[in-house]
Amino acid sequence: MTMLADDEADRAVLLEQGVLEAAAPGLIHVNLATISVDLARELARLEHEHGITYVAAPVFGRPEAARAAKLNVVVAGAADAIARVEALLAVIGERLWRIPGPPEHANVVKLAGNFMIASALETMGEASALVRAYGVSSGEFLNILTGSLFAAPVYQTYGRLIASERYEPAAFTMALGLKDVRLALRAAAGAEVPMPFASVLQDHLLEALATGKAHQDWAALADIAARHAGLPRAK
Amino acid sequence: MTMLADDEADRAVLLEQGVLEAAAPGLIHVNLATISVDLARELARLEHEHGITYVAAPVFGRPEAARAAKLNVVVAGAADAIARVEALLAVIGERLWRIPGPPEHANVVKLAGNFMIASALETMGEASALVRAYGVSSGEFLNILTGSLFAAPVYQTYGRLIASERYEPAAFTMALGLKDVRLALRAAAGAEVPMPFASVLQDHLLEALATGKAHQDWAALADIAARHAGLPRAK
Repeated sequence: MTMLADDEADRAVLLEQGVLEAAAPGLIHVNLATISVDLARELARLEHEHGITYVAAPVFGRPEAARAAKLNVVVAGAADAIARVEALLAVIGERLWRIPGPPEHANVVKLAGNFMIASALETMGEASALVRAYGVSSGEFLNILTGSLFAAPVYQTYGRLIASERYEPAAFTMALGLKDVRLALRAAAGAEVPMPFASVLQDHLLEALATGKAHQDWAALADIAARHAGLPRAK
Repeated sequence: MTMLADDEADRAVLLEQGVLEAAAPGLIHVNLATISVDLARELARLEHEHGITYVAAPVFGRPEAARAAKLNVVVAGAADAIARVEALLAVIGERLWRIPGPPEHANVVKLAGNFMIASALETMGEASALVRAYGVSSGEFLNILTGSLFAAPVYQTYGRLIASERYEPAAFTMALGLKDVRLALRAAAGAEVPMPFASVLQDHLLEALATGKAHQDWAALADIAARHAGLPRAK
């Protein structure tokens, strides 16, 4: 089981430093990292040539969810291999979501899901900026929406961070957010899928990096929307 | 209590056809419509001059929610007036959300909330197009996301429509969606709040009208994303 930060780390450790070469045939490799669809395909192929079965199992959940064994694990690959590792994944995951098809199907689901989270952050940011400009507090506003139509973990967890403008310490940084939105856009470009929301997100995440906010939680996408509107910081 | 379709209808009935002139001083006017922030301000001022108390009470919820008395009602205005009409609003509403400040505060919350719904539709549309382009069904994908991080009424209700590509008959049309996104953008322009997601939404809703889809449910924003990606229709 590996869970490295990005494509570069996976390539360095698995391919360049010889982990794959040294691995015994018959092993199952469960890759929990959020990596590109292309690299997932390539790893599955190379490992197959070495007699290793590649299972993609990217996870949804912030560090506190991992600690509480409440991750959502999306898994794809050979059914018999998944059956053998299921008990291990249950140690970190509250729920295991099986996707039919090749391993990279789990990766595209993960990238599309992270894009949905980033979009929710930008959406809350723009909506909060609008209501604040008219004198309604973002806490008041987000409390209504996340207590009714948008009563979901993503909106409630991040809504609290946005309403209180608490962007440090980060559980998931702007830099990682940019990485994931870029992976989604790369997958989208590879399949000729226009994603205008993802393009806006990429620009705002780049702005975060350019203005020294790479270390902030990506919930601070809402701070960028507030800055664009010339709104004062709460404190 | 009035609940007319838009600014024009409110103006025609309340102002031009003389309803306001004929109304007895001391009345409370509860306006449930989704109208512009500017018109809400203007009505509150004009009615005040006639001795009428204006209460803004826009609602969230599709027709089936209204029938089941499960609307979310956002209300703002004079506290004593709201106290007197509360029992009436409970007939249609599951929950009453009070906003401090002048009546138009409820309207800006409603516009920002509808913008959030439209953004969720576009987001599900772009994400679904991405996974479909890689061979994952949108039903499979949306089932995972709306069963975990995005387990909220908006995502679950609209996710089902998007996965099944059922956009007719509409509960809320593209034409009405465009009206509301335009009202949000007008309020945003009035307060100098950039909303790039809302700008994308306006373009896609205009495209819906231009391509003969004004009557479809605004969940068909996902269909526009699929068309942009050249994906085939499910049936």
